[in-house]
Amino acid sequence: MTELKQRVGRPIRPVLSRDTIAIHALELVTDHGFEKLTMSQLAKKLGVAPSALYNHLDNKADLVLLIQDALVSQVSLRGMAQLIEGEVSLAAALEDWARSYRSVFASYPSLIPLIAVTPVSEAPQTSHMYDTVAKALITAGVPEDHVITVVVAFESFLFGSALDVNAPANVLDAPEGDIWLAHVIKASRKVSDPIFEAEGTEHPPRMNSDHATAPFLFGLQALIDYTLRFIPSTASAATS
Amino acid sequence: MTELKQRVGRPIRPVLSRDTIAIHALELVTDHGFEKLTMSQLAKKLGVAPSALYNHLDNKADLVLLIQDALVSQVSLRGMAQLIEGEVSLAAALEDWARSYRSVFASYPSLIPLIAVTPVSEAPQTSHMYDTVAKALITAGVPEDHVITVVVAFESFLFGSALDVNAPANVLDAPEGDIWLAHVIKASRKVSDPIFEAEGTEHPPRMNSDHATAPFLFGLQALIDYTLRFIPSTASAATS
Repeated sequence: MTELKQRVGRPIRPVLSRDTIAIHALELVTDHGFEKLTMSQLAKKLGVAPSALYNHLDNKADLVLLIQDALVSQVSLRGMAQLIEGEVSLAAALEDWARSYRSVFASYPSLIPLIAVTPVSEAPQTSHMYDTVAKALITAGVPEDHVITVVVAFESFLFGSALDVNAPANVLDAPEGDIWLAHVIKASRKVSDPIFEAEGTEHPPRMNSDHATAPFLFGLQALIDYTLRFIPSTASAATS
Repeated sequence: MTELKQRVGRPIRPVLSRDTIAIHALELVTDHGFEKLTMSQLAKKLGVAPSALYNHLDNKADLVLLIQDALVSQVSLRGMAQLIEGEVSLAAALEDWARSYRSVFASYPSLIPLIAVTPVSEAPQTSHMYDTVAKALITAGVPEDHVITVVVAFESFLFGSALDVNAPANVLDAPEGDIWLAHVIKASRKVSDPIFEAEGTEHPPRMNSDHATAPFLFGLQALIDYTLRFIPSTASAATS
């Protein structure tokens, strides 16, 4: 209420907050890539003086933390929360988290190299995600000294998969002379032809018209299967 | 010999070639990142006029292909060549290629988002790598319509792993309050303490002082194991 009173008489303008700043920063990154993002450009987009921006942010490194939190808070933790409650399997929780994670980062490929190396301890939403995932994995039976290994292995794959989403469909076209490459590309495409679809679906997933989907599903299943080896009951179920 | 004669009387200077250009471009990328690489800066570093550079390159997109080839030609294809000759297993060939691939790209993180989306058909060394890997995987029995899926899944993981090599050791430090994250980080570090090493090595690999190694080995083994499911003999060997 105090805050509201103070604002009486001021011109109507969205109050500058870390959330507002993050939203506008992400818009600039979407339009121009992270390299082109400057504090002065961001201030201009927000319609404030750079000094107003510096009331909320110390520097561009602080802006990176803000952006990281704005992205990571979009990643679904529903599966992990359900795993903690015993409502879904470890495999289901990992899949929910991984699909959502890849989807969020696929929209911001220029941020991936930066976020991959930014410490999380100053980004509260980000460290909260890791905290929830750690709790869920321990609850499911992943040995506590392997949790970080599992999470980072998934993330490495998800960052790379998010980049691959942005590759053009012809990223692997073969030049004349590379006959093996040409052959496997042709074979990959064949299976998305309706005539060949009738052969039925096989496991693991095949390449289809969305070039990035099959590799993502293949790697995701590989990582999930390998993680399940930590869980005695699943491991014995898989081999019996 | 003809070429040698033409050079008589000219000042001694390395002949400008696409190889020389690529080496100097990679040096600039190492020092300043890809964003800062310009044709004029590259010409300056080579000690030539920009016009001389344009005799070898059409534009910056052409420079990207040149850089891509210079990097990819450093990736080991020895294991894949041995697989084609029947001298090593599919698992060994994939591991040789993957370790080398990650190591090469870990030195150039700023190039990863770019190379992940650059079509390979105009980069002869790059398409040659894919051609060799395709031939090797088919030789080993990977179904031809799954080869691209396998290769792209590995690459997604390797790009992300190469980024993770560049993360600081404290990238996952926990802030106060995130007790689960703090707990698993502590558990990860414990195992690299010599006192705890005596407990013996377990499979899969544990986190150690090189924070990026264990997640890489975990994901690599996951992908190799899943790929081996395509090979009937290995699959039955694994379950027997």
